[in-house]
Amino acid sequence: KSGSLTKSHLRISDNPIKSEYLVQNADFVMISNFSFVHKYDCLDGLSQNGIVLLNSIFTSDEIDKVLPDNYVKILKEKNAKLFVVDAQKIAKECSLGSKVNIIMQTAMFKVSNIIDFDTAKQNIQKYIEKTFSTKGKDVVSNNLKACSMTENSIQEVDVQKLTLKNKDVMKKNINDVFYNKIMSSIEKMHGDSLPVSAFDKSGIVPQGTAEFEKRGIAENLPKWLPAKCIQCGNCVMACPHNAIRPILTKAKTDDELEFAKAFGMDGYFYRLQISPEDCTGCGVCAQTCIAKEKSLVMTPACEVFEDEKKKYEKSKQIKSEKQTPFSTDMPKGLQFKNCYFGFSGACAGCGETPYIRLATTLFGDKMLIANATGCSSIYGGSYPSCPYLKDENGRGPAWANSLFEDNAEFGLGLKLGSQYSSEKEKSVWIIGGDGWAYDIGYGGLDHILNSKQNVNILVLDTEVYSNTGGQASKSTPRGAMVKFANSGKQTKKKDLVALAIANKNCYVAQVSLGANQNQCIKAFKEAEAFDGPSLIVAYCPCTNHGIDMSKTSAEMKKAVECGYWTLLRYNPQQNLLSIDSTSDFEKYDDYILGETRFAALKTTKNQNAKHLLEENKKDAIERLKLIKNIVSSFDE
Amino acid sequence: KSGSLTKSHLRISDNPIKSEYLVQNADFVMISNFSFVHKYDCLDGLSQNGIVLLNSIFTSDEIDKVLPDNYVKILKEKNAKLFVVDAQKIAKECSLGSKVNIIMQTAMFKVSNIIDFDTAKQNIQKYIEKTFSTKGKDVVSNNLKACSMTENSIQEVDVQKLTLKNKDVMKKNINDVFYNKIMSSIEKMHGDSLPVSAFDKSGIVPQGTAEFEKRGIAENLPKWLPAKCIQCGNCVMACPHNAIRPILTKAKTDDELEFAKAFGMDGYFYRLQISPEDCTGCGVCAQTCIAKEKSLVMTPACEVFEDEKKKYEKSKQIKSEKQTPFSTDMPKGLQFKNCYFGFSGACAGCGETPYIRLATTLFGDKMLIANATGCSSIYGGSYPSCPYLKDENGRGPAWANSLFEDNAEFGLGLKLGSQYSSEKEKSVWIIGGDGWAYDIGYGGLDHILNSKQNVNILVLDTEVYSNTGGQASKSTPRGAMVKFANSGKQTKKKDLVALAIANKNCYVAQVSLGANQNQCIKAFKEAEAFDGPSLIVAYCPCTNHGIDMSKTSAEMKKAVECGYWTLLRYNPQQNLLSIDSTSDFEKYDDYILGETRFAALKTTKNQNAKHLLEENKKDAIERLKLIKNIVSSFDE
Repeated sequence: KSGSLTKSHLRISDNPIKSEYLVQNADFVMISNFSFVHKYDCLDGLSQNGIVLLNSIFTSDEIDKVLPDNYVKILKEKNAKLFVVDAQKIAKECSLGSKVNIIMQTAMFKVSNIIDFDTAKQNIQKYIEKTFSTKGKDVVSNNLKACSMTENSIQEVDVQKLTLKNKDVMKKNINDVFYNKIMSSIEKMHGDSLPVSAFDKSGIVPQGTAEFEKRGIAENLPKWLPAKCIQCGNCVMACPHNAIRPILTKAKTDDELEFAKAFGMDGYFYRLQISPEDCTGCGVCAQTCIAKEKSLVMTPACEVFEDEKKKYEKSKQIKSEKQTPFSTDMPKGLQFKNCYFGFSGACAGCGETPYIRLATTLFGDKMLIANATGCSSIYGGSYPSCPYLKDENGRGPAWANSLFEDNAEFGLGLKLGSQYSSEKEKSVWIIGGDGWAYDIGYGGLDHILNSKQNVNILVLDTEVYSNTGGQASKSTPRGAMVKFANSGKQTKKKDLVALAIANKNCYVAQVSLGANQNQCIKAFKEAEAFDGPSLIVAYCPCTNHGIDMSKTSAEMKKAVECGYWTLLRYNPQQNLLSIDSTSDFEKYDDYILGETRFAALKTTKNQNAKHLLEENKKDAIERLKLIKNIVSSFDE
Repeated sequence: KSGSLTKSHLRISDNPIKSEYLVQNADFVMISNFSFVHKYDCLDGLSQNGIVLLNSIFTSDEIDKVLPDNYVKILKEKNAKLFVVDAQKIAKECSLGSKVNIIMQTAMFKVSNIIDFDTAKQNIQKYIEKTFSTKGKDVVSNNLKACSMTENSIQEVDVQKLTLKNKDVMKKNINDVFYNKIMSSIEKMHGDSLPVSAFDKSGIVPQGTAEFEKRGIAENLPKWLPAKCIQCGNCVMACPHNAIRPILTKAKTDDELEFAKAFGMDGYFYRLQISPEDCTGCGVCAQTCIAKEKSLVMTPACEVFEDEKKKYEKSKQIKSEKQTPFSTDMPKGLQFKNCYFGFSGACAGCGETPYIRLATTLFGDKMLIANATGCSSIYGGSYPSCPYLKDENGRGPAWANSLFEDNAEFGLGLKLGSQYSSEKEKSVWIIGGDGWAYDIGYGGLDHILNSKQNVNILVLDTEVYSNTGGQASKSTPRGAMVKFANSGKQTKKKDLVALAIANKNCYVAQVSLGANQNQCIKAFKEAEAFDGPSLIVAYCPCTNHGIDMSKTSAEMKKAVECGYWTLLRYNPQQNLLSIDSTSDFEKYDDYILGETRFAALKTTKNQNAKHLLEENKKDAIERLKLIKNIVSSFDE
């Protein structure tokens, strides 16, 4: 996930290497993400006269201002060489998105003298052609360009001119027992030094600890323009990280905080506050903004970060009004309700998290969540980080993850157990991705859908095994090029919604938040209210789709408009199917060819490509017909 | 399973019992099935002056003729008392079918003096009222009647007058290494005396060992009347035990064997031969006979057993003609093909086994079978008994059972593995019951149905967990009274066939052998020929349904005629659905009320009973509509 650390130890020698332990004295250290220098002791174990390569938006002249004291000390002590390269900038110029691996690899060979650089470069170029040829000519040429640009973009820093600022940037001032006892050590990758006795015996993690991470990975932050904002709340609903929050107050306590007059509540003021350290800079909020002129504008983080940080701290002091005259059936009113999920480590622009955000906003104070293995179990509960929150009454979702294959059964167990609890109003949610719901956990899911148990199932459908690297699931549509389906998937997407409706036993909804927030809210409320099993299948754009992740919300909308993903709700009690969207299949090709997973098929030598994509469209048309026909089978 | 042994060891005392080992000196021994005396040393460990109670169709005067020498010797040596009671006869007179437990329990208290008999009787009567009240008044009064009749039907045998016949009836003359090395000991319940070294290291069991069991449990045997036989082969197809076999020959070698002139093959003669020791006497063959006057008549075994046994041995010597001008699309021609499955220990009248018989007749010489846990894994492979057979070329099905939950995956593994075999023509069959297919193994089954793999899935649908004692599965229809659904199942039968068709990827057939043998043969052949996954869902009447098990074939027919079970075949390549039966829903109530599982609901105080049975019918009507509507969704 973005901002998380992977540490690789590599030994290179002409002789056989028999050392079976981690590198203790590194001749060369590469740091591929600048934010790491504020979080980890990356130079622990650097050898005398070692070489350090840092991916940095700061040039060799600027770096002194931001390099922490512990880094400066070690670099000087070890008489090290320090090189910087702005890999993000090169990646952007070469249309590589956030992918910096070719750039950092090239830079490594340029500065490390492991082998002759020309030899290294030739091999990198060969590798690019071999690896990316299936993804199209553009991808190959972009990577080759990045390789060339890198060579001339590396700057050496004069280590001896670096200065100490007498400020420990790695120390966060967080007043929390769990954070200081356990989390701070783990954050610095020193978790293995903690004694067993430090841990809670029951395995319980306190809620809200994700907030302590303060990852600060955004390159751009949304800047709020009060005068242009229509206060609809759509951006609040759409933010994958819960990093943008509305404040509604009678008393403006601070002149430094901009407010707008609250629409529809005389005497009240409205403000949208960004959390700059938790925002990933994905840009989904700005894309989602429906004001005539955008009221959220993505702005380089360096220009607004410190200011926004101060404002965020001040805003936190303001008790925002929760009671409003606005209906919570719409984002306008719902935005002011307490949300019990935020600051998770999900990918920037994640299509899944806004649904969890929504569910917890609606039912968080009485939720029991059984979470299947997958992305949602990783950003939902990677020890010691917990993005689930509790309110001032100490209430919030109880969350746990059992196994990939038994999550539905696990949730059913929570439901049955909760009937013996003194509190009867528990709302049980069984959450997972399509790998779980369509494949590995489908047996249990099907069992619950055929039962009379009042549980709610939320399928975060990315149409691919996202967390494990993009393998095909039965949800993957025909023609998508994914792992295990390198020539494009040959079978149609499994019609989970149709199959569930055919049971005539459970409430079923298909939603796409970016397409219609109101429909989505309605579906969640109806699912929860239904006295029996409920299934919500939610469309979730994902990095694996090969799309611009700042536009996931727009992608959700396009998917619905072209008929790729139909919004619907089905209640078996009245055998009532509501189709909540209209499908313009004329727009279909435009939509799917805008996603690399489908578009890539056309660039391969696959003879069958055209046919597969035509079939894909036919599948979608038939799917809608199928659902309607199933429902009509039950008419008296 | 019928004829199999359960051995219970019971100690009774006024003081606490601390003996943790089996009874070594039994004061009382009860043998509840007469056939056991020819198979087991039931009197091993009888104490001096012990009492023996035997369920016997032979009276105290007749018993000496049939009691084996080893029994006579022990009874005399131990100065034992022997009592006989004809529990079958009482059960029949009291309409209890084959259930003799109340009768044997009553008899035990009558002869054993464990407690005062009047006290025992009162408690048995209370137990009857408590246990059977949910099954209706008749069941209660029938059991009470049986209890009373038993009391006066017990006869004491004068042990000292019993004679030795100098004949070891327990010794079978079987010339087979595996039988003599292993199986004979296990048959006598002496398997624990076998050394580990006696067993095959790979775990392989030779084929055809079920034939050595010679259970001889039939009370009645079908008598063939050549002049009335139309030689259609229907009885051969319907026999659950493969105990009735056609012989087609030019040379009548023996005048003692009756033949009829073979219809349609000049110069040939036809005979149906019963295997009296393997026949269970279920009567399905006679019920299935479609001759104007029945050509198979159930006859008391004692009248024909010895004669048929001799004829069976003679018939085995005749090499029956396999090449005929008759199409193998119909039983008429198919009956002469080699069958690779027979003499299994399935219940008398089992609705499942004829389908396995059929599959192996069609494809047995190239079959790999993955068998799910359930009845079919018990009668299909309970060590050391193997009902699968090999032909004169040594060819036959390879069979194995993995886990309940992974049978589809296991079969897929066999398929993938077989592609590396030198023989490419393997036919992979994945077989199991509804507990597997609808519930425990559904995740894997669904995965294969969405794949492109050429495997064949046969679901033996008894609509209940038959082998574990009759618990509800998702296949159980609404309103059926089964375990876990004591008030009648509240949800509808899961529409496995509809769900499979909705995939538009696999061949799907629904069959009911007793209703239409030709349609069933057609479906099996089409499934096997389809280059992709195939699913056959086969209707299987079962003892758990509460029906007369001599009429399972007729029950299959009734189920189809009333629309409870629709015969159909679906080929996704042409999106072609063939509905092979017509449904007269007017006959629906008559059908379901003929089965105790449904009828019992009406006799309970369940307010909802009428509604549930109405819904059951509605479900069936909707199911057919649903399937048609699903298929029409895919029309261009």
